[in-house]
Amino acid sequence: MINIPRGTQDILPKDTYKWQFIENKLHELMKLYNYKEIRTPIFESTELFSRGVGDSTDVVQKEMYTFKDKGDRSITLRPEGTAGVVRSFIENKMQGDPNQPVKLYYNGPMFRYERKQKGRYRQFVQFGVEAIGSENPAIDVEIISMLVHIYKSFGLKDLKLVINSIGDAESRAEYTKALQTHFEPVIDTFCNDCQNRLYTNPMRILDCKVDRDKEAVKNAPKITDYLNDYSKQYFEEVKTLLDELGIEYEIDTNLVRGLDYYTHTAFEVMSNAEGFGAITTLCGGGRYNGLLELLDGPKETGIGFALSIERLLLALEAEGIEIEQEESIDLFIATMGDQAEKYSISLINKLRHSGISCDKDYLGRKLKGQMKQADRLNAVHTIVLGDDELQKEQVEVKNMKTGENTTVSFKELEQYLKEKS
Amino acid sequence: MINIPRGTQDILPKDTYKWQFIENKLHELMKLYNYKEIRTPIFESTELFSRGVGDSTDVVQKEMYTFKDKGDRSITLRPEGTAGVVRSFIENKMQGDPNQPVKLYYNGPMFRYERKQKGRYRQFVQFGVEAIGSENPAIDVEIISMLVHIYKSFGLKDLKLVINSIGDAESRAEYTKALQTHFEPVIDTFCNDCQNRLYTNPMRILDCKVDRDKEAVKNAPKITDYLNDYSKQYFEEVKTLLDELGIEYEIDTNLVRGLDYYTHTAFEVMSNAEGFGAITTLCGGGRYNGLLELLDGPKETGIGFALSIERLLLALEAEGIEIEQEESIDLFIATMGDQAEKYSISLINKLRHSGISCDKDYLGRKLKGQMKQADRLNAVHTIVLGDDELQKEQVEVKNMKTGENTTVSFKELEQYLKEKS
Repeated sequence: MINIPRGTQDILPKDTYKWQFIENKLHELMKLYNYKEIRTPIFESTELFSRGVGDSTDVVQKEMYTFKDKGDRSITLRPEGTAGVVRSFIENKMQGDPNQPVKLYYNGPMFRYERKQKGRYRQFVQFGVEAIGSENPAIDVEIISMLVHIYKSFGLKDLKLVINSIGDAESRAEYTKALQTHFEPVIDTFCNDCQNRLYTNPMRILDCKVDRDKEAVKNAPKITDYLNDYSKQYFEEVKTLLDELGIEYEIDTNLVRGLDYYTHTAFEVMSNAEGFGAITTLCGGGRYNGLLELLDGPKETGIGFALSIERLLLALEAEGIEIEQEESIDLFIATMGDQAEKYSISLINKLRHSGISCDKDYLGRKLKGQMKQADRLNAVHTIVLGDDELQKEQVEVKNMKTGENTTVSFKELEQYLKEKS
Repeated sequence: MINIPRGTQDILPKDTYKWQFIENKLHELMKLYNYKEIRTPIFESTELFSRGVGDSTDVVQKEMYTFKDKGDRSITLRPEGTAGVVRSFIENKMQGDPNQPVKLYYNGPMFRYERKQKGRYRQFVQFGVEAIGSENPAIDVEIISMLVHIYKSFGLKDLKLVINSIGDAESRAEYTKALQTHFEPVIDTFCNDCQNRLYTNPMRILDCKVDRDKEAVKNAPKITDYLNDYSKQYFEEVKTLLDELGIEYEIDTNLVRGLDYYTHTAFEVMSNAEGFGAITTLCGGGRYNGLLELLDGPKETGIGFALSIERLLLALEAEGIEIEQEESIDLFIATMGDQAEKYSISLINKLRHSGISCDKDYLGRKLKGQMKQADRLNAVHTIVLGDDELQKEQVEVKNMKTGENTTVSFKELEQYLKEKS
């Protein structure tokens, strides 16, 4: 037997309704915020990610699905959504759109070759938002408040919003030097990755999965002490606006994100729910002022976040929130005899064309089996068509909830069901 | 600059609303027919396609995105949807579900490395339907009538439905022999692919893109003359039921589909619209009674179709059918002065939380620029917040269509907009 690829999952009909519900809600929320959907390809040229995500990251170094296509081009299944959206912004010259900032969202599969663990798949779905073309604390706050709004709109309560500022390029350069001086004497005791990071990107030592509990990490210099005036003021304004909106947050000076292109505001939402598991981060995001230029684009700045739908589902489960299943059809048509069977096919076709959801048997089940099928499908109404009904051109419509029977002529059946459904 | 991979496209906000409209309509139609969504991974093990689609097909031989993952497994970006759905059916033992046939649909990207041409992309989106677990002409007709219903529900008129029967395995074996006898004397004049096909799968000579206009193809034996009694009767019943539903069709005995696993009913929908371009097939489908066993699954039979959303969009365009864009927000908030700017951020947050779609300026535009932005965003209402409004706690709400102004207090604004939107 051929199996599903390792680390991937089928989303089966017993679960797809949850995904549909979440996606519909997200589309509705995006309308409220006036963000528009963009769809970029599943794969991009490998260079986009090695430059846009950063060569020094685990994602690029270890986790990408990279291969050569038949034209010998190196392509990679997208490990995240921002690089593709920014590539599209640049390629389609969206800086020329008078509606700035350009507000975009996406929803789709991403791919990372990771160790399998609960809630983590090699193919996973990210919903993400990007606002490109404005460097303004108010837009940072729009993005963060939208994110909180999203989670709350699903009924989640045990959430923690964590924010930080990484400052601008100047502040970051100062801070990088301070970190190098701080870690250099003890770097031998750190993992190999961190030993490399000391020179490539020392900020990433702070969120190393291996070393993050080490004393030297805990008493490392704090970025907030190295912010220049502009960066400091920018962060202050973000905090003030969040306070005004009544959005609670914590500041975590070690929140530096795994990706290289972030500047200023960085944020994460975590679940505090009991039994949620080891990975509590539901969503991460931040400002990426350097990214567009890094990708040979215009000098535009952006901010965004990406959230995992799989994690959102886990969070809902952890808080005991169920998505209701609207699993019912308006009518099940049972038949007895060949004539009725034949007639039922025309009837079901006619009813579906007038917007009534219906189903029938296709396995030649006996009447009892057909009624069981109607029950399992949670049909609102059932009719039984036989020779008698065909002759009289009328049928008993049974309401499956109340058990009530109503005699309805063939002519009036469509209208009757429309009113009841 | 890094470009989008060759043969793929970005779907930009100016177009995504069309895709959303189509997908929503498809979801609604699927409810009427009681089909449920399934989502399978973007890639599968290569073996699934080489076995399930068929080693002799162009798809497998020339068009697949196949590569090794980091665990040295050969995986392939799915070139079509049926194989994955059937793999999932088998792996999840869906034959044990009491609701037979299992009625499924999917919608998502597929990948084929093809020459670029109008309406054909290397990443394209297929919507497909599968009914697995019933061998009954009535289910074939349900599938075909659903397909016609789908196209008509978008307003398409210039359509042609073409059907054929390939018969069961016995009929097919007889027919294959007849074709070999027929083509053997002239096979030297055919393309290399057809010379191979003569022994691997001679039916595929009939729809060869290179040779299909040759005299020997036109006067080839017809499958309908080789159907055994069971296959003949099956096809008769399908035709009779289609007639009863008033669904028009043509029979094309050369319609044998490019894939190996089809049996009995095969069908295509084509566009007759003028200026549609060279490739007029919008959708293809058929019965695949042998596929589940071929993939080591249970002895269950299935039927389905897949349609390309890109082609559907082209067909709509060719018939001059436009999908209307619902591009508007309920309110644009313009501001004058720092206090008003600050207040507007709380206000917009509050309004969005009560379901009112709104937007504001984030670029520090002057009032005139803000009003232009409101116009471009097609806002239904606009307000201008300044010191005066803040002091009086009331604002003029301007209806952008009528030009009418209404004075509304801050307290009543939410309610007022709710009633108007």
